[in-house]
Amino acid sequence: MRNIRLTLEYEGTAYGGWQVQPNAPTIQAALEQALAVMLKHPARVTGSGRTDAGVHALGQTANFRTGARIPLKGVLHGLNSLLPDDIAVRRADEMPPGFDSRRSVREKTYRYRIHVAPTPSAFARRTSWRVTVPLDLGAMARAAALMEGTHDFAAFRAAGCDAATTVRTVPSVRVEARGEFVEVTVRGNGFLRHMVRIMVGTLVEVGRGRMPPDRVGELLARPAREEAGPTAPARGLFLVEVRYDMKPLETYP
Amino acid sequence: MRNIRLTLEYEGTAYGGWQVQPNAPTIQAALEQALAVMLKHPARVTGSGRTDAGVHALGQTANFRTGARIPLKGVLHGLNSLLPDDIAVRRADEMPPGFDSRRSVREKTYRYRIHVAPTPSAFARRTSWRVTVPLDLGAMARAAALMEGTHDFAAFRAAGCDAATTVRTVPSVRVEARGEFVEVTVRGNGFLRHMVRIMVGTLVEVGRGRMPPDRVGELLARPAREEAGPTAPARGLFLVEVRYDMKPLETYP
Repeated sequence: MRNIRLTLEYEGTAYGGWQVQPNAPTIQAALEQALAVMLKHPARVTGSGRTDAGVHALGQTANFRTGARIPLKGVLHGLNSLLPDDIAVRRADEMPPGFDSRRSVREKTYRYRIHVAPTPSAFARRTSWRVTVPLDLGAMARAAALMEGTHDFAAFRAAGCDAATTVRTVPSVRVEARGEFVEVTVRGNGFLRHMVRIMVGTLVEVGRGRMPPDRVGELLARPAREEAGPTAPARGLFLVEVRYDMKPLETYP
Repeated sequence: MRNIRLTLEYEGTAYGGWQVQPNAPTIQAALEQALAVMLKHPARVTGSGRTDAGVHALGQTANFRTGARIPLKGVLHGLNSLLPDDIAVRRADEMPPGFDSRRSVREKTYRYRIHVAPTPSAFARRTSWRVTVPLDLGAMARAAALMEGTHDFAAFRAAGCDAATTVRTVPSVRVEARGEFVEVTVRGNGFLRHMVRIMVGTLVEVGRGRMPPDRVGELLARPAREEAGPTAPARGLFLVEVRYDMKPLETYP
């Protein structure tokens, strides 16, 4: 059996998230349906992880197994012709048999786009969170630096999160201005439920002057979810990249 | 009577262009409808010029006259609450009585986004033209430089264009790489129908190696529409900025 990894871009607006579920269209379901048509056999894909309803991706990864002898180029173009316009396969890789999109992950990068403007944008509305007051980027950068490293992120997880441990390592949290936007880019080896969105909600509280940057250090030392910021909306979040150590056997394009 | 200028952003995908017409929704119609509700009197807006069906704007301008005493801030937020999501008012200015969005124009800037990639993008599909083969940017820049200045652009206008003269001045045509995209930015004091899109279609022919850059100079010296490139699709084109000499009396935000 071949083991094929896809790198996917999607606008999550119209979907109930990555994972197949009974009452909403999902990215995984759309992909498995397109694969079944192309491969002429049912196919199950394994994603690098779930993305929540409304969250976008520039580099989600997923793998599937097949005996079909379609070349990678055919897999990629075939899927793109079958998928809806808001999902695109950007790359296809032939992987060693042991590769698993979820279990083999080394690191993920998320980016959150905040649109800082008194007026809405006709283009950014589905892919950013608009904040109508100016943000103090220096204060946000100081708070972001405190988030870097290995910490107990219990204050930064959703109520329903049932992870066994809440300690995570986040090597990098960057805050950058880009025209009318502030982008928060977070790299890590694993994330709790809503963790990035609560980190961003907290950084925006700091940027608005409602929370001193040092409070972030205290929240990591003595976690209290109710004292962290609100969960930033899904529409600003992008899964940008998933990194692996395992190398592809063949790649397209 | 007050004379108010709006600066507008819109995604043109869902519209039959700027100008009111009987059988398609248009930006002007949506704006006039929102204005009538807010001002409680019928209002006519004058745009800086038409944009074609599917063309976008980051800085279209339009003015209207009213006796209503709503402050600029109220005009801007009121309109944004009434307009559909794909149209946004970014700025409102109180202008001198003699200002006219169309007749007072000094210069316009258009930008065209070409997505150079073998695979589609889930985000750029409505706002770029995808070209699947690599483009020679050096050759495109040489051809673009030949377009700069005052020339007879008769080879670069649509069949239905009935402009009295086809001589136009284009001070600047820039070709820039930006990640997966190539952006062509054109400044000028006036444009023929489809002129920017035919310029871009021609530059892409040059970039693909189907036309030598010098051919552009010959087309400007001895115009022949059938020998210029095809008209690039509307979805890649943005009206970026409209400049005026007349200064506003008051501005928001």
